Amino acid sequence: MGKLVIVGTVAFDAIETPFGKTDKILGGAATFIGLAASHFDVDAAAISIVGGDFPQEYLDLLSDSNIDTSGIEIVKDGKTFFWSGKYHNDMNTRDTLVTELNTLEDFNPVVPESYKNAEVVMLGNLHPLVQTSVLDQMTKKPELVILDTMNFWMDCALDDLLNVIKRIDVITINDEEARQLTGEYSLVVAARKIHTMGPKYVVIKKGEHGALLFHNDNVFYAPALPLEEVFDPTGAGDTFAGGFAGYIAKTGDTSFENMKNAIIYGSTLASFCVEKFGTERMQNLTSKEIQKRLLQFKQLTQFEIELT
Amino acid sequence: MGKLVIVGTVAFDAIETPFGKTDKILGGAATFIGLAASHFDVDAAAISIVGGDFPQEYLDLLSDSNIDTSGIEIVKDGKTFFWSGKYHNDMNTRDTLVTELNTLEDFNPVVPESYKNAEVVMLGNLHPLVQTSVLDQMTKKPELVILDTMNFWMDCALDDLLNVIKRIDVITINDEEARQLTGEYSLVVAARKIHTMGPKYVVIKKGEHGALLFHNDNVFYAPALPLEEVFDPTGAGDTFAGGFAGYIAKTGDTSFENMKNAIIYGSTLASFCVEKFGTERMQNLTSKEIQKRLLQFKQLTQFEIELT
Repeated sequence: MGKLVIVGTVAFDAIETPFGKTDKILGGAATFIGLAASHFDVDAAAISIVGGDFPQEYLDLLSDSNIDTSGIEIVKDGKTFFWSGKYHNDMNTRDTLVTELNTLEDFNPVVPESYKNAEVVMLGNLHPLVQTSVLDQMTKKPELVILDTMNFWMDCALDDLLNVIKRIDVITINDEEARQLTGEYSLVVAARKIHTMGPKYVVIKKGEHGALLFHNDNVFYAPALPLEEVFDPTGAGDTFAGGFAGYIAKTGDTSFENMKNAIIYGSTLASFCVEKFGTERMQNLTSKEIQKRLLQFKQLTQFEIELT
Repeated sequence: MGKLVIVGTVAFDAIETPFGKTDKILGGAATFIGLAASHFDVDAAAISIVGGDFPQEYLDLLSDSNIDTSGIEIVKDGKTFFWSGKYHNDMNTRDTLVTELNTLEDFNPVVPESYKNAEVVMLGNLHPLVQTSVLDQMTKKPELVILDTMNFWMDCALDDLLNVIKRIDVITINDEEARQLTGEYSLVVAARKIHTMGPKYVVIKKGEHGALLFHNDNVFYAPALPLEEVFDPTGAGDTFAGGFAGYIAKTGDTSFENMKNAIIYGSTLASFCVEKFGTERMQNLTSKEIQKRLLQFKQLTQFEIELT
């Protein structure tokens, strides 16, 4: 059983979509990553920070999913990070309504002693210096470090971002961010440029159009499952990353062929995430449902052509 | 060896892309469909109309590709259909600069006697009444009728379009057109609505994001090959349709499983089409090159997950 370190936000979200709106509900990158990774036989720990306003039941929810929460700092007199957003009708774009950093502003992640030798490290979207700090605490070089980031850090902390990117193995990034980071429109060319920045593996997320995995001249394309409706895209990218990281940690196999499977697991889990608000769908997802949807992914993509 | 009837334009195109521009070169839906279908062991005929200004060498090019051209009417004192367009920087959108219908205005397609019993009919993008006329001439119900169309006919000839759509088996349409035809944003819901209009199979083309095949509750997703650069997208959709139709005509198998392969062949051929201006890349494409790219498509999409 591989060890997996997850760093990211554990937070409150308030979400508005064409289908309705929520009050403050459980959210955050580490939450979605953890819930996704919990479907694999891994020893995972979430590292984050919350305020005294954060309900114990949310922490219990992570513990009950076998996520070690000893690395989640609770600042008794602080408030938990809060994000609120509104999705447009096409569900592909959204406006951020509120961002209250709160305790996140002074987040100094502390990796629990027993996880400093973890095989896989998943750096969720956070300030690049926070991501760097986690890497610095590892006593053994991890077999795979995965980093997720966003355009905000390219605008505000590009040098720090480039420094941490040098030290990682896999970057997950969306198509527009890949273009912003490299100045290249073609995703093939963008991926090649990102390779030269450090990551041997580049995962480009294209939302409803799926995800691409690049490794030198190898490419793998996992479509997103065509859905009747996307109810709430919040957390889909983190769920994808969590499924990817969890599968790699469980199998301990970082070959390109195995990463293909990790991508498919990530896509499969993300296809559930968007079916309900927030973490709701991920909280009672069974392995039978996952297996059934994996079969759908196979039928969606696999074909039999004999080459001559 | 199956018979394939192709109706569509045989035309002059003048194309401008960020990479350069062309004078009047060979174009037209039936041209691209025919060149793609010629890679399969089929007995294909192109039905179209050109003017006296159309070079014999272009007709020879089709004949040399084993396309019967006896159904291409030559109006000695007429001019050939001419289209000119300019692609924007993202290559996904274009402006039409010139459309001269010329002889196409009075096109009455005549299916050559020996092709009236063809197994597969490919109705390229044309006025729906012209597409209907071809179907009316078939003496034996074809095993598969494929129709391509565009938003222009939805705007100007919707009733005629709906009438011919009732009589076909497969429609190929792009994502925005599927949304326009049905008023549904979700492609899954749009495809279901199109099923009720007649076609048992709905192919939705998403350009650089690939193509979806719907048949009742079955879905297949073929990605487009990620390319370093798309040089000229003109004809890619017709090439895709021609590969699809050619493969079905050759194999004589209209099962969903075999249509998956037809989609992959269509995508493979289209990935060559966009590499050069107009038909240039399609004119000297070898089966060895096609087999090599099919292997790339396999590597791009195939994975090995054991389901439990």
